[in-house]
Amino acid sequence: MNGAESLVRTLVGSGVEVCFANPGTSEMHFVAALDRVEGMRCVLGLFEGVVTGAADGYARMAEKPAATLLHLGPGLANGLANLHNAGKASSPIVNIVGDHATYHRQYDAPLTSDIETAAKPFSRWVKTSRDARSVAADGAAAIAIARTPPGQIATLILPADTAWNDADAPAPALPVTARAKVDDAAIRAAAEALRSGEPAVIVLSDHALRARGTELAGRIAAKTGAKLMAQSFNARTERGVGRVSVERIPYPVDQAVQALAPFRQFVLVGAKVPVAFFAYPGKPSLLAAEGAAMHVLADVAEDQIAALEALADALDARKSAPALAPRVNAAPATGAITGEALGISLGALLPENAIVADESVSTGRAYFAPTRSAAPHDWLQNMGGSIGIGLPLATGAAIACPDRKVICLEADGSAMYTIQALWTQAREGLDVTTVLFNNRSYAILKGELANVGARNVGRKALDMLDLGRPDLDFVTLARGMGVPGARVETMDEFNRRFSEGVRTPGPYLVEVML
Amino acid sequence: MNGAESLVRTLVGSGVEVCFANPGTSEMHFVAALDRVEGMRCVLGLFEGVVTGAADGYARMAEKPAATLLHLGPGLANGLANLHNAGKASSPIVNIVGDHATYHRQYDAPLTSDIETAAKPFSRWVKTSRDARSVAADGAAAIAIARTPPGQIATLILPADTAWNDADAPAPALPVTARAKVDDAAIRAAAEALRSGEPAVIVLSDHALRARGTELAGRIAAKTGAKLMAQSFNARTERGVGRVSVERIPYPVDQAVQALAPFRQFVLVGAKVPVAFFAYPGKPSLLAAEGAAMHVLADVAEDQIAALEALADALDARKSAPALAPRVNAAPATGAITGEALGISLGALLPENAIVADESVSTGRAYFAPTRSAAPHDWLQNMGGSIGIGLPLATGAAIACPDRKVICLEADGSAMYTIQALWTQAREGLDVTTVLFNNRSYAILKGELANVGARNVGRKALDMLDLGRPDLDFVTLARGMGVPGARVETMDEFNRRFSEGVRTPGPYLVEVML
Repeated sequence: MNGAESLVRTLVGSGVEVCFANPGTSEMHFVAALDRVEGMRCVLGLFEGVVTGAADGYARMAEKPAATLLHLGPGLANGLANLHNAGKASSPIVNIVGDHATYHRQYDAPLTSDIETAAKPFSRWVKTSRDARSVAADGAAAIAIARTPPGQIATLILPADTAWNDADAPAPALPVTARAKVDDAAIRAAAEALRSGEPAVIVLSDHALRARGTELAGRIAAKTGAKLMAQSFNARTERGVGRVSVERIPYPVDQAVQALAPFRQFVLVGAKVPVAFFAYPGKPSLLAAEGAAMHVLADVAEDQIAALEALADALDARKSAPALAPRVNAAPATGAITGEALGISLGALLPENAIVADESVSTGRAYFAPTRSAAPHDWLQNMGGSIGIGLPLATGAAIACPDRKVICLEADGSAMYTIQALWTQAREGLDVTTVLFNNRSYAILKGELANVGARNVGRKALDMLDLGRPDLDFVTLARGMGVPGARVETMDEFNRRFSEGVRTPGPYLVEVML
Repeated sequence: MNGAESLVRTLVGSGVEVCFANPGTSEMHFVAALDRVEGMRCVLGLFEGVVTGAADGYARMAEKPAATLLHLGPGLANGLANLHNAGKASSPIVNIVGDHATYHRQYDAPLTSDIETAAKPFSRWVKTSRDARSVAADGAAAIAIARTPPGQIATLILPADTAWNDADAPAPALPVTARAKVDDAAIRAAAEALRSGEPAVIVLSDHALRARGTELAGRIAAKTGAKLMAQSFNARTERGVGRVSVERIPYPVDQAVQALAPFRQFVLVGAKVPVAFFAYPGKPSLLAAEGAAMHVLADVAEDQIAALEALADALDARKSAPALAPRVNAAPATGAITGEALGISLGALLPENAIVADESVSTGRAYFAPTRSAAPHDWLQNMGGSIGIGLPLATGAAIACPDRKVICLEADGSAMYTIQALWTQAREGLDVTTVLFNNRSYAILKGELANVGARNVGRKALDMLDLGRPDLDFVTLARGMGVPGARVETMDEFNRRFSEGVRTPGPYLVEVML
């Protein structure tokens, strides 16, 4: 067996079963090995941002890494933005990048670049395999690094000759590190903060936003009177009717400062100290009131569920009844399309056990609250702020969970970074209904222009925020990639087409004209 | 004036008149300044690979840098692949990347990343502005670095507060370094090689492939009996009827080795020592015969035209008649679509003074020879090997040369990396006719799979090279972005639609079904 085959066998042996790929010449031996090894599903993306974003979505839902397969430095570069997002989401990914044969690099052929340096800012670990006999062990190490809590990006660079030369055997799976338990001091400090009588908020993210985490946090909140909040952006939130509903810290700085102003005690569970997404002239970077105390119950790499259990015990909160999202029999909204109406319809029509990949940006802030009593679902967000994640994220989630419906809430501007994902959805027959919000602009930037205090704004500046002239037609774009869809201009049409998408297996796109 | 305005004024004052942009919040002050400063055209790309690829195309034709405007590390990352290509093409670019405010970076907000490290592998120079009052001088330095021969990528990172805080004034333009003259020893060595009586080849690239360079090289070849060849890939070749026709070193290694085998003396003019694009098992990296002598007449940063003049003088070749591409009255091809027929039709129908942006990959190898007697034109190729350059390159060339028709020869697989460029062409009304070769596969990789010796190839591997299921419909994709077009299945249809595209102002797409 050659180095490439030893790597594919190592991946499969360690439970890595999916490879999102956009390969080239230097990766052809890896591609050829796919047919000789059982158990690896290989999914083609037509652009590398689709590949890495899909690996992120897969990791969030499968709770284990997929592999990628990228073509030298530029192929990696095209995947870096969604790798950035995946890293911020603590998604485990085994990121495999082909390179020139070791002896060929000295000749500075056109595709030569410094791949290691390019990978470093977006990887927890980077290694170039030295020779074919090292590839299997390097692969096993990459998998172990990727699976190290909270989940990391491991980039393995594979010179072409390390793929085609003879190797020995696959490497055995390395042990997977478990999340560390938090120490008693952290439990005690959090318990004291919540018992202090001072206004307190428990800020959740990461695993603390799974149903078991929000249930425990809900009991603690009920017992202590603390407020529950989630970060503005979270990798995966289990929510919906019958689960504890947690509101998010608002994105706009002024609203966030106002929402957090009452609290003197912060208990962070998988969440970071709340900070502004961007800096703005005259506005703070830190969102909590000055002097508020920050207590880390469990950081993103620690066992947040066990920590919440211990905290619940310490506070004798195990039996306190959490506030659950009530069952409501809301009908879908009718009439003109508005953000509020769309939220109501999504809340009413979201199918049971859906996965929502949310990159609806400015429009989408209206959808979270009204979907809190929707059928139980998972809500995935962009953790790294690099737009162009939504369609790939939905693609990867659908690969991970073929029995669940994926709903992608996507903004027009963001969609255009990785629109190629629709083709992969069509090829793989993925069960994704994309709701494309077409407001013909980078609407968020219109607000940001004012937020940063930019004045004397004229036509040339506004043109940079405007997606019209010509208008993008997303139903047509989707059709060009084999995905059916429809454009809607009223809520009745939205309700009908969205339901049609949900009912029909395979990808579908509903373009909502705003 | 704030830092952003001082930068825009510095750019305009130094002759940088175009900014290709995909801005976000951290770049809003730069955007706002555009309306306060006369003389900067700002062109929006919906994806950053469009932005950097367009800056490359602009630089090649305008012979001066454009600026880019990118949004933090991930925005830069999305632009790196075409920045890689631009760097390999020696295209000058002032690459401007916004960052978080200096004081905000410590909080590790979602979009925080190590921008400098990400930029380094793809930039000749990277600098982060320290404060608003430094921005203008940093901008002037970036422009000077970009314009340093042969043309370079200068990346200037602009923290948001350096854009919005008060600055003093724009910085004056710095002197532009001229290309160095080659020394007499290089002239003498090349002359001796060509007089040696041994079989000799003059390999041209860069400026040596402008009409004046090929004319001089043609005279030298006529005088000495040396063969003229060009690199396989060249940034810009002036060619067509009445100019010296130069064939390219073939891309496939075996053919290249065979083509170069006869030669014992190589004179390199703006060209590199010929190397294989990729390594293959059992095939050489170096393409020339072993022991062949390599003489650098002028490297890529030197004055190749002056060097060729001096060499022509040394060889008394100024009056020797070069072999010019003859006038032929070829009619367009009819019948079924083949590579050969397409080459003939392109040769017959290419409009006067066209700019050809060629990313036709496997299909396109047939088009170069039959277009040698086409109306005079410029032929632009991908120097870095990262596919997805064609549509952006054409976009930038059209911005640089509004009076010339741009013909983009584009492969289906490559088109999908930066398909968003079509929207920019529509918005700006650019005079680009795209010929999209749809063979429903990464055809080049089918050959490469065999070349690398991959065996036992089955369905899973072939699926990674196949762009069918579903078939991409490029006419529909173009229409979704406001670009009209037509699909053709015979040469008659091709001739008619291509001519229609050439005749009609604005963008047009001809999808050729292969």
